[in-house]
Amino acid sequence: MADQDAQFPAGAEPPALPTLRWEEPPEGPVLVLLDQTRLPAQEVELVCTDVPALVQAIQSLAVRGAPVLGLAGAYGVALAAARGYDVDEAVGLLERARPTAVNLGSGVRHAAAAYRAAVEKGADSGRAAAAALAAARELHRADAEASVRMAAHGLALLEELLPGGGHRILTHCNTGALVSGGEGTAFAVALAAHRTGRLRRLWVDETRPLLQGARLTTYEAARHGMAYTLLTDNAAGSLFAAGEVDAVLIGADRIAADGSVANKVGSYPLAVLAKYHHVPFIVVAPVTTVDLGTPDGASIEVEQRSGQEVTEFTVPSVSVAGSDAGIGVGMPVAPLGTQAYNPAFDVTPPELVTAIVTEQGAISPVTGAALAELCARSRQVTIS
Amino acid sequence: MADQDAQFPAGAEPPALPTLRWEEPPEGPVLVLLDQTRLPAQEVELVCTDVPALVQAIQSLAVRGAPVLGLAGAYGVALAAARGYDVDEAVGLLERARPTAVNLGSGVRHAAAAYRAAVEKGADSGRAAAAALAAARELHRADAEASVRMAAHGLALLEELLPGGGHRILTHCNTGALVSGGEGTAFAVALAAHRTGRLRRLWVDETRPLLQGARLTTYEAARHGMAYTLLTDNAAGSLFAAGEVDAVLIGADRIAADGSVANKVGSYPLAVLAKYHHVPFIVVAPVTTVDLGTPDGASIEVEQRSGQEVTEFTVPSVSVAGSDAGIGVGMPVAPLGTQAYNPAFDVTPPELVTAIVTEQGAISPVTGAALAELCARSRQVTIS
Repeated sequence: MADQDAQFPAGAEPPALPTLRWEEPPEGPVLVLLDQTRLPAQEVELVCTDVPALVQAIQSLAVRGAPVLGLAGAYGVALAAARGYDVDEAVGLLERARPTAVNLGSGVRHAAAAYRAAVEKGADSGRAAAAALAAARELHRADAEASVRMAAHGLALLEELLPGGGHRILTHCNTGALVSGGEGTAFAVALAAHRTGRLRRLWVDETRPLLQGARLTTYEAARHGMAYTLLTDNAAGSLFAAGEVDAVLIGADRIAADGSVANKVGSYPLAVLAKYHHVPFIVVAPVTTVDLGTPDGASIEVEQRSGQEVTEFTVPSVSVAGSDAGIGVGMPVAPLGTQAYNPAFDVTPPELVTAIVTEQGAISPVTGAALAELCARSRQVTIS
Repeated sequence: MADQDAQFPAGAEPPALPTLRWEEPPEGPVLVLLDQTRLPAQEVELVCTDVPALVQAIQSLAVRGAPVLGLAGAYGVALAAARGYDVDEAVGLLERARPTAVNLGSGVRHAAAAYRAAVEKGADSGRAAAAALAAARELHRADAEASVRMAAHGLALLEELLPGGGHRILTHCNTGALVSGGEGTAFAVALAAHRTGRLRRLWVDETRPLLQGARLTTYEAARHGMAYTLLTDNAAGSLFAAGEVDAVLIGADRIAADGSVANKVGSYPLAVLAKYHHVPFIVVAPVTTVDLGTPDGASIEVEQRSGQEVTEFTVPSVSVAGSDAGIGVGMPVAPLGTQAYNPAFDVTPPELVTAIVTEQGAISPVTGAALAELCARSRQVTIS
């Protein structure tokens, strides 16, 4: 993809990323995804014509990130319905695709509920499928709106905590337009700071093992012309020690009722570092990420992924002898037979979280009561 | 190299690693190094016939690790002397090869002092060169002995802090026979625990960006049949939170007079995590690593390495189309033009270090006075 900065004139906004979209070609409806495993080297689209293909895309992380997984789940149900597949089976497959991401299941259930309500009201399969699609589209629109509101609330919080701008923000994993129907969660706040001239530097953790920071956050930051610097995850400590981090902004995959935050592995060490250095640690996520049915951090199921992601190195851009043969092929870095511990997420307890920013506003300090109140407010908004 | 476990019968000790050795073939003396950049895929030896080749090997990390850099520096001076090169120029080149490692400079000065003393006493160039070589060999032998004593002191400290064994030890970077004239520093302690049945598990941080943990520590652990598990650096937080780490054992590249420890980047975040979780954080290093001329952590010069080590991924084992063409070739993971922050080391202040273990014994708590006393004891031993 070369240098993104060169593609867009200074000050101009790049076009929105084609993260995920519904299309209806003559052969039948499809869900089109930007294959995130190939970024930043290649912008390749994946066309899903059925739910198993979508599940495969979710598990291989071609599509990933909390909010957009909700959209993928909802569109997946719509796809099964529109193509005449068994909707109940599709719901089961999609819900089980990744266990930690709460949004996936809630997106799936949202579209399935719309489908079933239509069936119960006597709709034929075409109209029930249309109801599921409408629900997915509604979720998509709401998610884009939520991004805008999270960015505004997050920016206001930064101004309150760190008046005067000049923010040096550290972020982990990827939380931008690639994970969202809009501009994302934590990244959207950093982007808002950039647009208002308040961002001095975005520090981007590379985020091992899958390098979502090195591959995807840098890609989005470069598109927007932000001042960013990449670092290995373990170099963040040096930045804190040097006083080079004003705030940490991360997303969330699930927030328990007590305010414990499950997010990409490596978030918890940053929270401990931030606490030790008296730096605000801010979680940005839509209210749908809050799961009041999960009482605390210990109750969050953490997905354990294959050790091969650690013992082998998969370079998205490598091509062998001019062909694509090397793409996605892991090259061993550790001795054969090496076992690896590879949790996809870790859990940060509420006492290490300075604030949780949602589209309904921010809470700080983070308590179960404040979170419950925020969710109640959200339900009122949805009902009204 | 395939599975090392299979090469040695259960309970048998593998042969010593050919990390670094002096040879005198008919064409003239050479320093032979095991090229650590190619491990674990290939066991390839590098033959250095002059100092610039050795400096290149040091800077490319073909030879690396605090104690062995001292040996490399001393043998480098001996090589220059034996081959009739300018010894003063060799000293300058070697001393400047890597700024943070204190042992490199002290090894260089040790051999150079022996050379100059011989010259001053009227020795011819051959006898002066022999004096430099004898000094290098003496350092080599002393380093191997120091390993044995560090392992014994470290094991005793573990037994005191964590009686009963069953240790789950987390380590970072590589501190075994590949960095030493003997069995290393922190790794030698873990190996001693393994040999006495006290090691339950060695948790091995992969150690980005150059993966010394994933490539080298796993390689050494597998050779010895130790129970080990690899993890990304950022997954260590999850292990601490789960109570799966009983102690952290790391090496050091330079210890300042106040007890501040410069070591591979990623050590400081582990120290903060260990403090937060009340887990002992133990530094194992020979007394030569202590630099009383550096008053504190802020005075330690930290080597900044090329950002390409982060933005590109160099897989030591990759071969393209059956040839060696791909070895050492970086493959980009981040967008073109991405800047990276890539300090080679970080500095851990003494208040986060539970103990420093040397061949002269352990100190805990770590204070400037205790460190000075330890160094004084070391000088007495050297003089006697």
